[in-house]
Amino acid sequence: MAITLYDLCGRDDRLRFSPYCWRVRMALAHKGLAYTTVAWRFQQKEALAFAHYDKVPVLTDGDTVVTDSFDILRYLDTTYPEAPVLGDGLGLQRVTLFKQLVDRSITPALFRIVVLDLLEAIHPEDREYFRTTREARFGASLEAVHDPEKGRQQLHQALVPVSAQLKETPFLDGDSPAGADYLLFGSMMWAYSVSTETLVEERDPVAGWFQRMLAVHDGVAGKAMTIRDLY
Amino acid sequence: MAITLYDLCGRDDRLRFSPYCWRVRMALAHKGLAYTTVAWRFQQKEALAFAHYDKVPVLTDGDTVVTDSFDILRYLDTTYPEAPVLGDGLGLQRVTLFKQLVDRSITPALFRIVVLDLLEAIHPEDREYFRTTREARFGASLEAVHDPEKGRQQLHQALVPVSAQLKETPFLDGDSPAGADYLLFGSMMWAYSVSTETLVEERDPVAGWFQRMLAVHDGVAGKAMTIRDLY
Repeated sequence: MAITLYDLCGRDDRLRFSPYCWRVRMALAHKGLAYTTVAWRFQQKEALAFAHYDKVPVLTDGDTVVTDSFDILRYLDTTYPEAPVLGDGLGLQRVTLFKQLVDRSITPALFRIVVLDLLEAIHPEDREYFRTTREARFGASLEAVHDPEKGRQQLHQALVPVSAQLKETPFLDGDSPAGADYLLFGSMMWAYSVSTETLVEERDPVAGWFQRMLAVHDGVAGKAMTIRDLY
Repeated sequence: MAITLYDLCGRDDRLRFSPYCWRVRMALAHKGLAYTTVAWRFQQKEALAFAHYDKVPVLTDGDTVVTDSFDILRYLDTTYPEAPVLGDGLGLQRVTLFKQLVDRSITPALFRIVVLDLLEAIHPEDREYFRTTREARFGASLEAVHDPEKGRQQLHQALVPVSAQLKETPFLDGDSPAGADYLLFGSMMWAYSVSTETLVEERDPVAGWFQRMLAVHDGVAGKAMTIRDLY
């Protein structure tokens, strides 16, 4: 069946930076599943009405509609069980715990570093929407949240267990990447796609891991457009 | 076969506080394995010579000798596969990642909170040894490391993903505790055994989880001696 991913785009239709959509793209590549994407922008709510959802990723697989990146990863594991991404049992439970680290500690730190670059990467017609919704969520102006130095300190602290693990194994999930890698990679790729800010020091094992992640699955992420292609 | 655990003790032989020994005790209880303990103090190196090791936990199971808490947990899973503690495959890999969070971020924060209480809990004859070895490791006096307020801030930050997960499931490993719970519990029980300092706020889901952990497996941890019994 044909798989379609509704994928957030920025000021260029080919600039795709959503951390949650990247999780899904890496999972699809992991399973070797062919798919097409639909470029979607923040305010195109009507385009997702069929899914009863107002943000991406939304995945359609034939007549099946799945929303939310983690639910999509679970759906893919259930429907295409070869090459598990999240796994099941204790593996699934523990990747849920790791997701909390990514969502609650790592992604907010990255946001502090790249928020103003992110604003520039967004389509001009979406910037006011982005500013209004995010400032309401944070109770602060984007400029007040923007603090790359503090963000890098928070990121470094949150990545301590990740860096330690990557001294032991090339990927978080062992000898080859799987769900834990894709959860973290989504957020790192988001920041990397919209900003040239330094995220981690070159000697940090996370830097080498990120390069490996850009290369896996035929370099699907490494070949993607980033802000560097739009200067 | 008879299982024996060499278990660190403090100023009272019954005061057992090693975070790494607690991991093993909870894993043994999880599997319903009977065992006896040998109370061991920091400088009794000759008592462990048979294991070619100089610290605890050391576990003997008949003629088998296993050292290092994580290796002991793996040994128990292999030898007594019912009721897995660490599991295998992605589950094992991901609990290794969580162990990094416990060892690198959570335990050091707890150390800052309880270090001087810990010194008091140790047998008087071991205190100089403990001070000398730890001050060499940290490059600072114990008094300089001791900073409960800063420790609580670091602990709160490191526990963010744990607290978030414990709003979703009663234990880190789901509906019942397993390896991820025991790794964290070892460190929390260590601090709780030697100190009455507040570790987390009562409203933090970690506080409720800790109470549940004291109660599981017939309350093996809840019944154990703590510094509260020695005032």
